[in-house]
Amino acid sequence: MNLEIISIGDELLIGQTVNTNASWLAKHLTSLGVEVKWISTVGDDADDLKSALATAMHRSDAVITTGGIGPTHDDITKTVAAEFFESKLIFKGEILERLKRRFEKRGRKMSATNEDQAWIPEKAQLIGNPIGTAPGLIFEREGKKCFILPGVPSEMKMMSEETLFPIFKGHGQTIVQKTIRTTGLPESTAFEKLGDIKRVEQFARVAFLPKTSGVDIRLTVKGTDETECQKKLEQGVNIVLESVGKYVYGYDEEELEEAVAKLLIKTQKTVAVAESCTGGLLANKLTNISGSSEYFERGVVTYSNQAKMDILGIPKEVLEKHGAVSPETAEAMATGVRKISGTDFGISTTGIAGPTGGTKEKPVGLVYIGVSTKTETYNKRLLFFKQRLENKDRFVQAALSLLKRELSK
Amino acid sequence: MNLEIISIGDELLIGQTVNTNASWLAKHLTSLGVEVKWISTVGDDADDLKSALATAMHRSDAVITTGGIGPTHDDITKTVAAEFFESKLIFKGEILERLKRRFEKRGRKMSATNEDQAWIPEKAQLIGNPIGTAPGLIFEREGKKCFILPGVPSEMKMMSEETLFPIFKGHGQTIVQKTIRTTGLPESTAFEKLGDIKRVEQFARVAFLPKTSGVDIRLTVKGTDETECQKKLEQGVNIVLESVGKYVYGYDEEELEEAVAKLLIKTQKTVAVAESCTGGLLANKLTNISGSSEYFERGVVTYSNQAKMDILGIPKEVLEKHGAVSPETAEAMATGVRKISGTDFGISTTGIAGPTGGTKEKPVGLVYIGVSTKTETYNKRLLFFKQRLENKDRFVQAALSLLKRELSK
Repeated sequence: MNLEIISIGDELLIGQTVNTNASWLAKHLTSLGVEVKWISTVGDDADDLKSALATAMHRSDAVITTGGIGPTHDDITKTVAAEFFESKLIFKGEILERLKRRFEKRGRKMSATNEDQAWIPEKAQLIGNPIGTAPGLIFEREGKKCFILPGVPSEMKMMSEETLFPIFKGHGQTIVQKTIRTTGLPESTAFEKLGDIKRVEQFARVAFLPKTSGVDIRLTVKGTDETECQKKLEQGVNIVLESVGKYVYGYDEEELEEAVAKLLIKTQKTVAVAESCTGGLLANKLTNISGSSEYFERGVVTYSNQAKMDILGIPKEVLEKHGAVSPETAEAMATGVRKISGTDFGISTTGIAGPTGGTKEKPVGLVYIGVSTKTETYNKRLLFFKQRLENKDRFVQAALSLLKRELSK
Repeated sequence: MNLEIISIGDELLIGQTVNTNASWLAKHLTSLGVEVKWISTVGDDADDLKSALATAMHRSDAVITTGGIGPTHDDITKTVAAEFFESKLIFKGEILERLKRRFEKRGRKMSATNEDQAWIPEKAQLIGNPIGTAPGLIFEREGKKCFILPGVPSEMKMMSEETLFPIFKGHGQTIVQKTIRTTGLPESTAFEKLGDIKRVEQFARVAFLPKTSGVDIRLTVKGTDETECQKKLEQGVNIVLESVGKYVYGYDEEELEEAVAKLLIKTQKTVAVAESCTGGLLANKLTNISGSSEYFERGVVTYSNQAKMDILGIPKEVLEKHGAVSPETAEAMATGVRKISGTDFGISTTGIAGPTGGTKEKPVGLVYIGVSTKTETYNKRLLFFKQRLENKDRFVQAALSLLKRELSK
């Protein structure tokens, strides 16, 4: 069974609102085994909406629309859908009564605008809206259903969960997925390390999703039997892990800092960080995890040379001879912060986030990451690109990776 | 001129990725006066993509696709588009050379998979990709253009800004917009402060966009004459400013930290921060601005009490008597960091980000922000909600607001 989502509203077409409704629906429908094959977005325009409905009802087995069923003048979905499904609007007194009671309960008088909502397409089934004024609608033609839902996320979600999803349950195939999250590997290299992609694809469909933080590898298995699908998924995942396992930091929604936090807590180790170019982002990520005070002792953002000397005790000569952006300074920062805080690990970053400030020897995008443990100190040099915020992200991702590697030793 | 965006990728149809690319493009195209009339999302499926291209090239004046031009097997856009526009792929040696140099520069060997990217549809014009491996493509048929862009947001955005938007400039109607950014004001209060909305709407359409960081008020004027549109916009903006001016920190994309950075640079003042519950996010925001070393001297994330005593010299008695989350500690942190760094301002945060760890006296969402200048020291107590990351954001926004107020004195 495949399905099309039609998202309705000018705010989507002018980029004012990001279409989170469609991804929320898509995610939940996929987990029910319903294949979302198209998502179409149209504005508050009767002709465009009719055309979108015609296309969708033709090419898909079921359709869901969101948006445009509120009480104001730019809400046109109900009347357009009624026309499209050749159904006249009839007045339902019981809906008006329900609305009036709803307003009274909240100590308000219902405005006349809301009366329009008691006019309902004769052929449509209603979907109750427990938290809003506009009911949803279900039309049917040639065995295909079209569900009309509101665009307000909380209403759309509640109505989907209460009415829509139970209808789809058991009508879809089984779809199981796992996303394997890697970092430190370009997309093309990840692809090549997997070897002949058919080795994995005999079990699961593979997709590569490159992000600033690394490459996600998503495996999908569709079928009828859940156990069999899970087995195939596991076989596919194992092949991927054999090839790129050492770059993997987590699965599905897990972030690298979460994986690091888990390892720190499990091994009862602590960390302190000394940042220059990442300006606090490394500390921020490490403290995004609830309970971070268990493993995060302190961070310093030693932006000026004076701060590097004052707080971390870095000798003036090191800064003068090698510069603030150097392997020597990175290592001295990592060791310095570990020593003053008494933690197991000290991690540092020093580099040039950009977009300006680079030289030929030390270009924008260059970073040295320092790692200091109780037994050794080393640094890693990496070179990225020109954009400041992306660079900060990449530098931090690399620093977290090195910490994770230490924790996995 | 109307345009259609085709977003390509299974990750969009299974709800794994929210389609922020489409809204970013829509927003920028709208501001150029180009009407985005349709956004269509299809998976990594050749037949579906071909069908989407056919529909779009028929009903729209121009088409932009994003996604599916990377180097792996699930990237099918280039070959499908070449087929659709009846153009054979030819090998371009100079592209391969450029790619090889790119990898060499970063000290890496180019993998063979990337060679595929040197095969280019003969009829297509290339769009340079300064930060990725896949070039964009421009096809043309019957005077209509189809732009093929990557799905990686940073690449798509840079290529749009450098190549795409200049092509569209001057081809649409005039749409002028201004977003007035406020903080410290709930949406309903902002709305009420404006009084009768018609006072503004006689000049410009108004939208309220509540965010974690505050409420954005967006004004839009459409027309044919640019000067007239600008004049109306200005009249609308002035009315809004009369009502909520003191909560405004910037316009359009400007972030609060940018406004603060500008003021710091203009007044040649410096700042240092001492964070507890915000864990580095305040320093991170202040260092997100290029040139931040002019005003940002250092930051410390004194997560443990020991760190608060060691680095900031906070007396043990203060921590024991009042606790780490207290007005006294907040002020001591702000003063401490200002003194050790010799800056004009010291800003601190101490609170409970949550979601757990609160008590009846000190609930989750509580924060004290300390401000220390050369003449005075004070703190502000605020209480927000339960979600950790949102709280960190809100705490930092409030801290930046206080700093901005100091700078505007």
